[in-house]
Amino acid sequence: MLPLGDSPLVRDDKTIVLAHDHGVEHGPKQFKGYEERLDPNQVFEMATHDAVTALAVGKGLAETYYPSYDDDVNLLAKLNGGSDLWMGDPYSAQNWSVDYAAELGADAIGYTIYPGVNDEVDMFEAFGQVQENAREHDLPIAMWAYPRGQAVKEHRGREIIAYAARLGLELGSDFTKVKYPRSKENMEYACEAAADNSVLLSGGSPTSDRDFLELAEECLDAGVSGLAVGRNVWQRENPYEILDMLEEVVYNEASADDVL
Amino acid sequence: MLPLGDSPLVRDDKTIVLAHDHGVEHGPKQFKGYEERLDPNQVFEMATHDAVTALAVGKGLAETYYPSYDDDVNLLAKLNGGSDLWMGDPYSAQNWSVDYAAELGADAIGYTIYPGVNDEVDMFEAFGQVQENAREHDLPIAMWAYPRGQAVKEHRGREIIAYAARLGLELGSDFTKVKYPRSKENMEYACEAAADNSVLLSGGSPTSDRDFLELAEECLDAGVSGLAVGRNVWQRENPYEILDMLEEVVYNEASADDVL
Amino acid sequence: MLPLGDSPLVRDDKTIVLAHDHGVEHGPKQFKGYEERLDPNQVFEMATHDAVTALAVGKGLAETYYPSYDDDVNLLAKLNGGSDLWMGDPYSAQNWSVDYAAELGADAIGYTIYPGVNDEVDMFEAFGQVQENAREHDLPIAMWAYPRGQAVKEHRGREIIAYAARLGLELGSDFTKVKYPRSKENMEYACEAAADNSVLLSGGSPTSDRDFLELAEECLDAGVSGLAVGRNVWQRENPYEILDMLEEVVYNEASADDVL
Amino acid sequence: MLPLGDSPLVRDDKTIVLAHDHGVEHGPKQFKGYEERLDPNQVFEMATHDAVTALAVGKGLAETYYPSYDDDVNLLAKLNGGSDLWMGDPYSAQNWSVDYAAELGADAIGYTIYPGVNDEVDMFEAFGQVQENAREHDLPIAMWAYPRGQAVKEHRGREIIAYAARLGLELGSDFTKVKYPRSKENMEYACEAAADNSVLLSGGSPTSDRDFLELAEECLDAGVSGLAVGRNVWQRENPYEILDMLEEVVYNEASADDVL
Amino acid sequence: MLPLGDSPLVRDDKTIVLAHDHGVEHGPKQFKGYEERLDPNQVFEMATHDAVTALAVGKGLAETYYPSYDDDVNLLAKLNGGSDLWMGDPYSAQNWSVDYAAELGADAIGYTIYPGVNDEVDMFEAFGQVQENAREHDLPIAMWAYPRGQAVKEHRGREIIAYAARLGLELGSDFTKVKYPRSKENMEYACEAAADNSVLLSGGSPTSDRDFLELAEECLDAGVSGLAVGRNVWQRENPYEILDMLEEVVYNEASADDVL
Repeated sequence: MLPLGDSPLVRDDKTIVLAHDHGVEHGPKQFKGYEERLDPNQVFEMATHDAVTALAVGKGLAETYYPSYDDDVNLLAKLNGGSDLWMGDPYSAQNWSVDYAAELGADAIGYTIYPGVNDEVDMFEAFGQVQENAREHDLPIAMWAYPRGQAVKEHRGREIIAYAARLGLELGSDFTKVKYPRSKENMEYACEAAADNSVLLSGGSPTSDRDFLELAEECLDAGVSGLAVGRNVWQRENPYEILDMLEEVVYNEASADDVL
Repeated sequence: MLPLGDSPLVRDDKTIVLAHDHGVEHGPKQFKGYEERLDPNQVFEMATHDAVTALAVGKGLAETYYPSYDDDVNLLAKLNGGSDLWMGDPYSAQNWSVDYAAELGADAIGYTIYPGVNDEVDMFEAFGQVQENAREHDLPIAMWAYPRGQAVKEHRGREIIAYAARLGLELGSDFTKVKYPRSKENMEYACEAAADNSVLLSGGSPTSDRDFLELAEECLDAGVSGLAVGRNVWQRENPYEILDMLEEVVYNEASADDVL
Repeated sequence: MLPLGDSPLVRDDKTIVLAHDHGVEHGPKQFKGYEERLDPNQVFEMATHDAVTALAVGKGLAETYYPSYDDDVNLLAKLNGGSDLWMGDPYSAQNWSVDYAAELGADAIGYTIYPGVNDEVDMFEAFGQVQENAREHDLPIAMWAYPRGQAVKEHRGREIIAYAARLGLELGSDFTKVKYPRSKENMEYACEAAADNSVLLSGGSPTSDRDFLELAEECLDAGVSGLAVGRNVWQRENPYEILDMLEEVVYNEASADDVL
Repeated sequence: MLPLGDSPLVRDDKTIVLAHDHGVEHGPKQFKGYEERLDPNQVFEMATHDAVTALAVGKGLAETYYPSYDDDVNLLAKLNGGSDLWMGDPYSAQNWSVDYAAELGADAIGYTIYPGVNDEVDMFEAFGQVQENAREHDLPIAMWAYPRGQAVKEHRGREIIAYAARLGLELGSDFTKVKYPRSKENMEYACEAAADNSVLLSGGSPTSDRDFLELAEECLDAGVSGLAVGRNVWQRENPYEILDMLEEVVYNEASADDVL
Repeated sequence: MLPLGDSPLVRDDKTIVLAHDHGVEHGPKQFKGYEERLDPNQVFEMATHDAVTALAVGKGLAETYYPSYDDDVNLLAKLNGGSDLWMGDPYSAQNWSVDYAAELGADAIGYTIYPGVNDEVDMFEAFGQVQENAREHDLPIAMWAYPRGQAVKEHRGREIIAYAARLGLELGSDFTKVKYPRSKENMEYACEAAADNSVLLSGGSPTSDRDFLELAEECLDAGVSGLAVGRNVWQRENPYEILDMLEEVVYNEASADDVL
């Protein structure tokens, strides 16, 4: 990892990534009930909120919309992804190069790996090249670390999530996005395993304001450096309200109770 | 996507692509009854009609015939394709590089992907490289987006076609050619999913003038930016007549009734 | 295809290729009864006959013998090939680069593809690169187009051979070598499918002078631009005699009857 | 191999590598009971001990912690590795390039191969490239040589370990790390097979001070050039104490009895 | 092939290669009874004998020992090889590049191919690149040509060995090393098939002085250009004695009877 002191992704040592790769990963069906958000302008607009230190999107969205938002949004270029029409072993195709991401003004690189799958070797090798290419541009890297495969009985098991967090450190990411490992104590263990690496809680499916904010509070107490949020923001009637509250919890150490 | 304001493929914000890749995809048997059209000069000649903003052909046809038509035809270089003798999972071999397409004077790049097939990963990665290489030449890209594979029960289902259209936006195409999803409402949904991306209706097998023009009218009302036509033009006794009528419907907002 | 007006492979708009890749494709056993022809000098010598516009050989033969014949023989560099010890799906390994062929003085490039086999995608992509590399050296390309695989019930069927000829045009060859499709009418259809591309009849196994010359005459009438001959020349007691007769039939429109 | 006279990895012709790739190979679970050592600073600190001539770590640890230790620690850049979540045939993904290792200040390169596995060909070819790339930077290479696969009935058999040691010499490593082949006589044979190459004993799982030091003494007598130690150091209450004793045994020819 | 007149591998139009790749191909077990020869210095010393025109070794041995022998030994850089722990179809991993071989002072390149195996295509393509890269350095190439696979019922059959010898010529080697095809007449046929290419008899397992020398005499009469010897030299009590006798038989046309 690089020293992150000057990184635009960090505000008061904390980070909130608004992730919006749902169009490629799951398609329009995941916008059910929020079809107006199929317009990416709405999501780029949300990313201008002060709570959001980076917006994670793929190449097509970046190329089309980022030119209108580059003053107000930090771009986290999500280089790989795949459709959920694919029935193969989890693998995330890289359709965006680091060089072109840098040319479009990216502030950081995002990359998914699935440790434990049949093609783990290819994913580790591809990540290795992306990581070094990012360093040539002095760009930090966020790893989406999601263990899968035969040996992974529980995706969110204590050892699995801690291993995911550790792999972020070992393979050279700056931020490692992991799922919630089912208890605060397990998340503490994952953060300990990541040592100086920044662990980000992966937001997951939409929940109530209280559940979401309490989870954020708990994980911050456990040592995470922030959150990567998606549907819990853009699938809300008023995304700006939840961003206001998150901002207090993440950057100002407010409790969920305080802000609700 | 790039700003398309100046693109030679666009006339009054609309586009008609004459696609002629049948020789590689299906061979001479698809010219049955129209064997004189095995002479590509006839099809290049059709492409000089004002209705046609681009002719999509492969490398061999472009290399042989385009030099005689480059003043009057915009070349959409279809980089990949395969024979129907092949029994494998759908995959489209890239036999033409962006650089050589540009050298031959291409005005745009065309590329087929089959989301959902076993080799989706390879296709997404190959498209990613083609897309970035096209940008180096400032060339727009038309994606032929045809979901296939185990998870695709209905090629023309509402969610499938909308997903295809969205993938065009997400992966960085400028035009996305999709099949008709069986209703005007479904096509509206696909266009909504594509946001600012240009959706093109894929013409399909030959039908009557009325059926074809009514379908065009319906899809234009639903939000498509134009059509990619093939056999519905070159497999007609008088292709210029249907092009005259299409021109009215696509660029001048005439109805099918008006022109018939 | 390129304009072939100045090509050394063309004499009075016609072409005779002497193909001698039997050593790599089938080995010494195919020289049974003609073991003295295992000495490539004998075959290079035949290629100095005025009837022959090009000699198609692999890298090793070209490197060893062409320096002694480059004033009198046009070299068609056959870039790919394989042994018949191999039991896999038809595939032809490329063991010679276009650049090194050009360095050795090649006048044209030869390449085999097997449309329809499991690795059709790889073959189309490899041919695409070879074709463009050849263009950098302004070299014409002869494609050996031999459909194979599950969908090809009859290698010499009417539609199969016409498809092969069309693929030569579509993929960017200048000459397309196909098998005889069992009737003159079928060969006319193949030539029509190839449009402006030059179709070459693939000679096949040795036959009588009369059968061979009548086949040549018939195919020339059907529209082919010439022949690729092999065993029908070098597996004759007197190869020069048959070359004399072929010369009359191919370039001077003599009939088989005339020359026998 | 290169002349190692000036190598920072060698002290009095002997070498002790502290290997710390457990975080990537096995994850946090292997730190059970020593969770404070999840902080890599603790292990880098151990590597400053005079007994240690090199610290073997992966890219992420090197990038993050080595800048603070580069005056006091020699970096052995372990280029490849994989998670134990992977159920495939043993293979070690290369996620770090020689060039970037050199840029980070590496003093040597480390690489694992598994002779005998299904992908032996790929591993030998990859090692070959790494080896030559290392030579461009004048860097010595340590090979982790661990035969596996169907033909390897006993990982630690006499012939298997001797073959591993020989492959280090034959493929161009400078140091070859092998497992203990179950007897002093077998280790002598392995060292004889390695000829001038330096064989390093691979430390293995934690044992008592006496067992560990006696094994070291025995192998040094058998001809090894040193040890690669891991858990036998960092999974001790007082790692500095065992390093003090190892230093005497390895560099000063003390016996285990002497130092205990 | 290149003109070999000036090649250091040729003495009076004949060649004796001392091949020593047993350490990588079979490991120390093949040195049973001759363990002192695990020291490569002994074999490099043998290669200084005037009978030996080249020593064939892999990268590691060349890098370590050749600097001490480069005045007295011609290096034939054996670029590929594999362990006999591998249970896959025969394939020989290339772990040494032509460029690095040239940098280490190689006088020729050696490469193994197995025509007929499942990966014949890959081997032919790899050999093709090595061959052209060798030409850039003006280096001759010796091919180890060993047909294998389903269609090869008899490794040493008359047609198989002749095919192997012919492939050397066709694919562009300068020397082709083949097994003994069981009779002098068969070896004559193989040499005839190779035309101007130099066929080398592959020595095989150790036999008596008489058997070995009579075989050499017979094959030289049959037309081979020399031998590649290994265990028949270094697995003898006195290797220099057999080299003295071979020298007479190969270069001075002595009979086995003469020298025994």
